[in-house]
Amino acid sequence: MFETFETVVLVINTGSSSIKMALIDMPSEQMLAEGVAQRLGEADAELSWKIADEIQQFDLNCCTLEDAMQKMLDLLFGKVGKGLVTAVGHRVVHGGERFVAPTLLDDEVIAEIESLSHLAPLHNPSNLLGVREAMRYLPDVSHIAVFDTAFHYAMPKHASLYAVPYHWYSQYGVRRYGFHGTSHHYVAEAAAKCLGRPLGELRLITVHLGNGCSAAAVANGVSVDTTMGMTPLEGLVMGSRSGDVDPGLHEYMVRESGESLASVTDALNRQSGLLGISGLSNDMRTLLNAADSGNERAALAIEIFCYRLAKSLASLSVALGHVDAVVFTGGIGEHASVIREKTTEQLAFLSIKLDEERNSRHGRSSGGFITHPESSTPVLVVATSEEKMIARYVCKVVIQEDIAT
Amino acid sequence: MFETFETVVLVINTGSSSIKMALIDMPSEQMLAEGVAQRLGEADAELSWKIADEIQQFDLNCCTLEDAMQKMLDLLFGKVGKGLVTAVGHRVVHGGERFVAPTLLDDEVIAEIESLSHLAPLHNPSNLLGVREAMRYLPDVSHIAVFDTAFHYAMPKHASLYAVPYHWYSQYGVRRYGFHGTSHHYVAEAAAKCLGRPLGELRLITVHLGNGCSAAAVANGVSVDTTMGMTPLEGLVMGSRSGDVDPGLHEYMVRESGESLASVTDALNRQSGLLGISGLSNDMRTLLNAADSGNERAALAIEIFCYRLAKSLASLSVALGHVDAVVFTGGIGEHASVIREKTTEQLAFLSIKLDEERNSRHGRSSGGFITHPESSTPVLVVATSEEKMIARYVCKVVIQEDIAT
Repeated sequence: MFETFETVVLVINTGSSSIKMALIDMPSEQMLAEGVAQRLGEADAELSWKIADEIQQFDLNCCTLEDAMQKMLDLLFGKVGKGLVTAVGHRVVHGGERFVAPTLLDDEVIAEIESLSHLAPLHNPSNLLGVREAMRYLPDVSHIAVFDTAFHYAMPKHASLYAVPYHWYSQYGVRRYGFHGTSHHYVAEAAAKCLGRPLGELRLITVHLGNGCSAAAVANGVSVDTTMGMTPLEGLVMGSRSGDVDPGLHEYMVRESGESLASVTDALNRQSGLLGISGLSNDMRTLLNAADSGNERAALAIEIFCYRLAKSLASLSVALGHVDAVVFTGGIGEHASVIREKTTEQLAFLSIKLDEERNSRHGRSSGGFITHPESSTPVLVVATSEEKMIARYVCKVVIQEDIAT
Repeated sequence: MFETFETVVLVINTGSSSIKMALIDMPSEQMLAEGVAQRLGEADAELSWKIADEIQQFDLNCCTLEDAMQKMLDLLFGKVGKGLVTAVGHRVVHGGERFVAPTLLDDEVIAEIESLSHLAPLHNPSNLLGVREAMRYLPDVSHIAVFDTAFHYAMPKHASLYAVPYHWYSQYGVRRYGFHGTSHHYVAEAAAKCLGRPLGELRLITVHLGNGCSAAAVANGVSVDTTMGMTPLEGLVMGSRSGDVDPGLHEYMVRESGESLASVTDALNRQSGLLGISGLSNDMRTLLNAADSGNERAALAIEIFCYRLAKSLASLSVALGHVDAVVFTGGIGEHASVIREKTTEQLAFLSIKLDEERNSRHGRSSGGFITHPESSTPVLVVATSEEKMIARYVCKVVIQEDIAT
């Protein structure tokens, strides 16, 4: 199977309770295989692989991350020869200030990523567990770390620093890093193609609305500001994350409720956002249906989501001066036409004129565009693929390596 | 002295370590007397009164708030007959959801304000201490509470609610209240006069930049959104307050630094903002001078201050749709021309064209305007007077009382 391919990248994204893998032919970006293991550690944990066109599914039954990792790789390499894999790309959430570009993994780099774990205690350790397992299976190919923070590395200091005691930054690394960088970069490149202009000449606002949500101001191919900050909790309203709150909230809630700081912060991560306001669900589809049926709290959650998003997009426009286009992506961004409508109609200063038909089809029959041709600011919908972007990064690193050696 | 006046309002603003008083003839708004006691509790506490044109100053030497209050009232009424005072207006910081308009103080209202002290533990108790002392001196006139939060009472829910668990709002009152309401209302009225249009037809962004900083979106005379939230810590960068930070910051700093949550929150209130970034001062004048002399951290503090301010003004414009004018006030807003310039030049979408000459004179010889006549969006500088606004509110309540009785 697949014996005709020359450059094949295995992309691995190991989260705290899920693993995603993709086997991608480059530069065609053809997906040769896609796998996901989810709800790991829970009773209904499950794994599915689509290899060529064959789909396999398994119950994992409280399986650990390591076990699931091994099971996924065993299944893959039962079907596909290991020799096919040219290189492996690993998503790593936090690169801190140290890693601002995709980086070839070796013991030293792994140790440095480990030392950044205090910045992302839920993510970096899982990411590294995936790295170690994959290296055991594929010791002879290059493994490359691609950082979620890296695309935002060039944010100017006035955008990246908080107005807190300066030694919190110099001593503890307290600054805005931003996340979803791979997705923002991917959709910025895709949007440039749709617009028929070089990314290096464009000023874009990219809007990733999935379970986590963030927007970025991308000037000439570089992120100059973004809504997520030191952690993925800052900024927009998300499925179960609060986004911005009053910095006096934590002390108040600890005092008034008697809960610990850890418990309040956990509630801001897991019981807030759309779920917290609606009391119903973190899933936008569920809320849109409920709001249609007259559920007021669901409608309120949607109003707050769109209003806060519109405010953030307006504030990001300050970083750009002029906005050439707004680009939506992610589960909500790609599929919820009403959210795009409710958000863009609040951006009067961009004189956006949505096309109802194009928007309802998510731009699929109009080259991504969901605006009228005469809209002052075009708005696009682009399907993101962090996997493909990681594969592109990996190819660049591998080529550089080849040149260097 | 002053025997010819008919309606005279004594305005009292009792903070945690300062007291301000003003005796104002209404409706002329002539300041008959102005007094301030500051740094109370500290060795260099001092008091000054300007009564008619006579200035008196005293060292207070670690004096308590009560003692200072009595000393101020004794000095005032040694010069001015108590009988001159028609009514007393008291600034009260937090009215919660209960008080949305100026309110005649009686035992019941005082008890209700006391019950809101958990929302403003640093402010409401001091405010009430001032109320009680003043009532002892002037038991026979009306005392009226004017709330800092009240002007923002009509904010729609999509602007006032956080995306947190809903019972935090219903059970603990966690929502955005907004502050500086008296100042935002005063300068909105003043700006309407400058513009020669009724406030009820205008969409304004009012920007109060003093020690505390906040901006408000004022639509048709009503605040529809503002940057401060549940506490005066949210929003813009301020002298020593951080404004917005990542909601994950508190837990991170407690874990990494070993400090308590109270200590981290205190640092966000007292060691952050301009002071935190610059490491030098919370005073904008000091920073502007230092930046001119090449101090990089002072320059960075100014950059962050203006960038964050511009972003917030852009985001508030979403609440208005169209912006008729931007209005600056407060110590920095009224006197720092370079801050106004650095902020407005980042608001490309408003097509603001500042007039260098007018801006350098703070609009004083151009009817408040600091923009060219052909600027798409006019920008104004207006001197705020919370004291005069409180006196106006007081007169309205007193007139209503007279009609009612």
